[in-house]
Amino acid sequence: MPKLNFALIGAGRIGQVHAANIAQSDYADLVCVADAREDVATQLAARYGARVDRAESACQADDIDAVLIASSTDTHARFCELAARANKAVLCEKPIDLDLVRADACLAAVTATGVPFGIGFNRRFDKSFSVLEAALRRGEIGQIESLSIISRDPAPPPADYIKVSGGLFRDMMIHDFDTARWLLGDEPVEVFATGSCLIDPSIGEVGDIDTAVAVLKTASGVICQISNSRRAVYGYDQRIEAFGSKGMLRAENQVPSTVETTTAEGIRRDPPEPFFLERYGDAYKSELKAFVRAVVTGDEVSPSGADGRAALALAEAAAESVKTGLPVSI
Amino acid sequence: MPKLNFALIGAGRIGQVHAANIAQSDYADLVCVADAREDVATQLAARYGARVDRAESACQADDIDAVLIASSTDTHARFCELAARANKAVLCEKPIDLDLVRADACLAAVTATGVPFGIGFNRRFDKSFSVLEAALRRGEIGQIESLSIISRDPAPPPADYIKVSGGLFRDMMIHDFDTARWLLGDEPVEVFATGSCLIDPSIGEVGDIDTAVAVLKTASGVICQISNSRRAVYGYDQRIEAFGSKGMLRAENQVPSTVETTTAEGIRRDPPEPFFLERYGDAYKSELKAFVRAVVTGDEVSPSGADGRAALALAEAAAESVKTGLPVSI
Amino acid sequence: MPKLNFALIGAGRIGQVHAANIAQSDYADLVCVADAREDVATQLAARYGARVDRAESACQADDIDAVLIASSTDTHARFCELAARANKAVLCEKPIDLDLVRADACLAAVTATGVPFGIGFNRRFDKSFSVLEAALRRGEIGQIESLSIISRDPAPPPADYIKVSGGLFRDMMIHDFDTARWLLGDEPVEVFATGSCLIDPSIGEVGDIDTAVAVLKTASGVICQISNSRRAVYGYDQRIEAFGSKGMLRAENQVPSTVETTTAEGIRRDPPEPFFLERYGDAYKSELKAFVRAVVTGDEVSPSGADGRAALALAEAAAESVKTGLPVSI
Amino acid sequence: MPKLNFALIGAGRIGQVHAANIAQSDYADLVCVADAREDVATQLAARYGARVDRAESACQADDIDAVLIASSTDTHARFCELAARANKAVLCEKPIDLDLVRADACLAAVTATGVPFGIGFNRRFDKSFSVLEAALRRGEIGQIESLSIISRDPAPPPADYIKVSGGLFRDMMIHDFDTARWLLGDEPVEVFATGSCLIDPSIGEVGDIDTAVAVLKTASGVICQISNSRRAVYGYDQRIEAFGSKGMLRAENQVPSTVETTTAEGIRRDPPEPFFLERYGDAYKSELKAFVRAVVTGDEVSPSGADGRAALALAEAAAESVKTGLPVSI
Repeated sequence: MPKLNFALIGAGRIGQVHAANIAQSDYADLVCVADAREDVATQLAARYGARVDRAESACQADDIDAVLIASSTDTHARFCELAARANKAVLCEKPIDLDLVRADACLAAVTATGVPFGIGFNRRFDKSFSVLEAALRRGEIGQIESLSIISRDPAPPPADYIKVSGGLFRDMMIHDFDTARWLLGDEPVEVFATGSCLIDPSIGEVGDIDTAVAVLKTASGVICQISNSRRAVYGYDQRIEAFGSKGMLRAENQVPSTVETTTAEGIRRDPPEPFFLERYGDAYKSELKAFVRAVVTGDEVSPSGADGRAALALAEAAAESVKTGLPVSI
Repeated sequence: MPKLNFALIGAGRIGQVHAANIAQSDYADLVCVADAREDVATQLAARYGARVDRAESACQADDIDAVLIASSTDTHARFCELAARANKAVLCEKPIDLDLVRADACLAAVTATGVPFGIGFNRRFDKSFSVLEAALRRGEIGQIESLSIISRDPAPPPADYIKVSGGLFRDMMIHDFDTARWLLGDEPVEVFATGSCLIDPSIGEVGDIDTAVAVLKTASGVICQISNSRRAVYGYDQRIEAFGSKGMLRAENQVPSTVETTTAEGIRRDPPEPFFLERYGDAYKSELKAFVRAVVTGDEVSPSGADGRAALALAEAAAESVKTGLPVSI
Repeated sequence: MPKLNFALIGAGRIGQVHAANIAQSDYADLVCVADAREDVATQLAARYGARVDRAESACQADDIDAVLIASSTDTHARFCELAARANKAVLCEKPIDLDLVRADACLAAVTATGVPFGIGFNRRFDKSFSVLEAALRRGEIGQIESLSIISRDPAPPPADYIKVSGGLFRDMMIHDFDTARWLLGDEPVEVFATGSCLIDPSIGEVGDIDTAVAVLKTASGVICQISNSRRAVYGYDQRIEAFGSKGMLRAENQVPSTVETTTAEGIRRDPPEPFFLERYGDAYKSELKAFVRAVVTGDEVSPSGADGRAALALAEAAAESVKTGLPVSI
Repeated sequence: MPKLNFALIGAGRIGQVHAANIAQSDYADLVCVADAREDVATQLAARYGARVDRAESACQADDIDAVLIASSTDTHARFCELAARANKAVLCEKPIDLDLVRADACLAAVTATGVPFGIGFNRRFDKSFSVLEAALRRGEIGQIESLSIISRDPAPPPADYIKVSGGLFRDMMIHDFDTARWLLGDEPVEVFATGSCLIDPSIGEVGDIDTAVAVLKTASGVICQISNSRRAVYGYDQRIEAFGSKGMLRAENQVPSTVETTTAEGIRRDPPEPFFLERYGDAYKSELKAFVRAVVTGDEVSPSGADGRAALALAEAAAESVKTGLPVSI
């Protein structure tokens, strides 16, 4: 596989993960790093021998094949468009934009250029979730009849972040909406969602919720439940259960070790991995590899910009459902 | 504990379970058996040295302390009233009646007599579910924030039964509504339910569904999901997951043996117990014991007639929600 | 199945288990109870409407079909002989005698009468162990190549008991020697054993050990490891692992409930059942049923007196191995 | 941490693992690669931009800080000595030599130079085994009383390899002898071993065994069992169970995914990782990191040359025990 030259936009927590993966891979080089905070960009670039640049020029530089966008959400759409118009392959962290209209405009602009365009839904590259998906496709449980997705963060983000996050559905459950679409292999036609603020009153004060359930239904009647919480004291809780005409598939949490301690108090094993850096560390590597391979071979990038759009539409519908108290048709 | 003399009304599958438990217990005697099919009653009575009687007189006989009603659903309310008016303690299989108005009338009549009155929600007496409930009460996971109940039968009943069953919510999910109320320790104020007919078209033809999800919400914002299916090819799937501010409790299925077989194909262990006779065999014994103890000590019987009524009301609301496509307030 | 009339010799802890099982079964009646402590016998007999008798006459009474011997070990051989000569079927708790010469004499005497004669090795009737054995016989793991048996008591018995117990191998590991023979389907030809006193010095003071490992080898080269401890603080640890040319079978411990509690400290589930009354409660019922069925049908009783003898011989060899420090040929 | 310049001796399967780990680490550079097969060395060196050299000069080159020896076993001792005398830190794959006398000579020579000297016992760096060891040290199960180690390869090596391997104990169980010493925290004083050829007759024909059990005992009476097989059809079986006065620790196999498939046939999950490259992939990275850190900080390297010697002595004793049929004192 020939190597792709990457520009990385955004050198924060997730940008640093991508930087390391690009630098250590056999099929990508980290050429350029940009961040609104110049010192942060400089430090990360130095670590991997990349140059520092401003985001705008990084998106368009001649020696760049692909742009990985991991900057703050409100800049995603603009950088996607810039890079696409400069004929770069684009891998953008979710979401394209918090606003569906803006996301649609971006998607149209990018699509018009014909560049490869992928959205960073990391769940699709998790080893266990991939194994579950493959088993589903092979028909190991026959026709899928219901699906349950559980997704809980270890601790709520600060209220300041909540304010600009777009709310639980656009910020957090959007991952699960993508997972649902991926596994259902069919589009939901109805969403009902309900939520509460049970964990942190300051989340409620900015108009958001921290505990939520959504129920999706496809045209063929398959039902999907998604359950989210902003705070699981035991770690990062990421599980899937698919039920079908011939059985059930469950993907359980990943744990740091296999050690069991049996004492008079019971049998104890490790709690789940603490957060996404641990749980999805390998998934980010697989995501990058799949993106590069698609770009190189000319295959369609998956998940695509359209997948990003569809998950955002579901998030918007769920938010609407909570507001009105009614199910929302898609 | 002094022994109670029981009359058993209904000698079918579940009546036979109760008969054996009464006969083998240290605290109850099976004195009398009644069934619309006289030969069935005779055979069961003979096995345990009990006499055969007509249901009406069995409910009122002088030597009877308690009446266990396990006859067909449409006869429950009448026999409850008969037995209560004859001053017998009454343990009635769920539901009191498929019709809430009729159930209310029965409950009023029985309550007026002051006799002990219990409803046979067997889940409350399952060992694992009891352990989960006790841990919840002890605060092991802090405040409950969400609850998930999965309940799947191994195979759908014949369409003939479906027709008179009252539908999935009154016949099957009613158990889960009771479990939800028991574990939440609070009353749901809203129900949203959705369902499909994915398994057996003949179920749809009589206007019922075989796959359903309900979402309940309490006044304090705790959210409960219930998922039902009429057909799990791997057996009887009965699980609970409670999530709270300090952790999570899960009650998994019971399996026949602990044997694991590891081959080149993977690690295989037993599927869940096949059906309720296996899974809830011990629960029925505990239910009987708890009922007798409450009668003897004068403690309140639990689950009570009012619990039976409340679960039925939730079932009715869920059915209404499916019909209208809207959430229903309780 | 016609019912057998039982005399029970020994009304202690294990005798009480057998009494309840006989009394509640459909295929046996508890007719007579004997115990060196007359009040103990009287109390147990009263509970099940049986008569009290002296052991000697109980073994020979006209209305008795079968004698279950659960008295102290030093009386087993004598009562076996008495009952057999009176033409009763005999089910005797292990061991026949602590002394192999005496056991052989008893076995010869009983065999001469031709009565059905079984030894109470309860492990063979444990649900999980039976499932493992059946899978082994079906060839699920091909040819067995090695076997590992773990057997640990929750707490050591008092030193007074240790003194008369015959030592760890004859008292405790004898069960595992029987399990090994049963599962290997072949006779060990060599035993190496080693042991230590690590738990309770008073056990060492009376010349016994509390921690031991034995390695058995069959003529065909299959190797079996047995590990015993007198004290597992977490309960009764009873596991088997069989390894073969096509895979591995493991029977894990039985636990009281399936509940898992996940907190910041980890995932906790129940420790194993506390002791043999809980773990082997159902096994004792299956053992009784199998014995009665064999007696009634005329099939050979299994495990037989010869099985009891063979396990005792292995225990003796293991004790010899510890004494000499050398492997012992059988 | 300053970077160490490494020469890698041996570019075969395991050498390639080390090469990748050195090249991708932040604390080591792969400067030079040597292999008896020059093309193999050239290819590996090219991949990571290292130079190719003959082993003798690579061991002594001026720009080399550390030598990692992963060549064939019969060359280990010589290269260790060469590198040590050239004042290089040395990390040598096990064993130092198949012959204890030769290993002792090498150890003496290397020790005389005072260079850091480590042996590649990868088990000590496995995540789950490390967690188990740390729990043991913290006293989570009190005083250790017994230990069980299971180690099974997926398939036997070719008979040609067996011939030069030194036999099962020196080639395979040597890892477990090291693990035993590490976990026991005390030296075995007696070894009894027994073995069979059950899998591949050609192994027996060259005088080796493919199935073996060893029992070790320390001066304080702690007992350790080790069970080896050359063929587990389900993958690489690597487990540890430590039992003590306050409980038990078990390290189970690592599995590729957490997916469980439940069908009418049972609940299936993944078999263990296929072989050591998968199971110990991360362990090799941790091993390298620990070695570099010790070299850089001047701490003692662990496991040390003396550990390598001690494990080899146990292997020799076990082989002697099988030959004589008697336990061997250390």
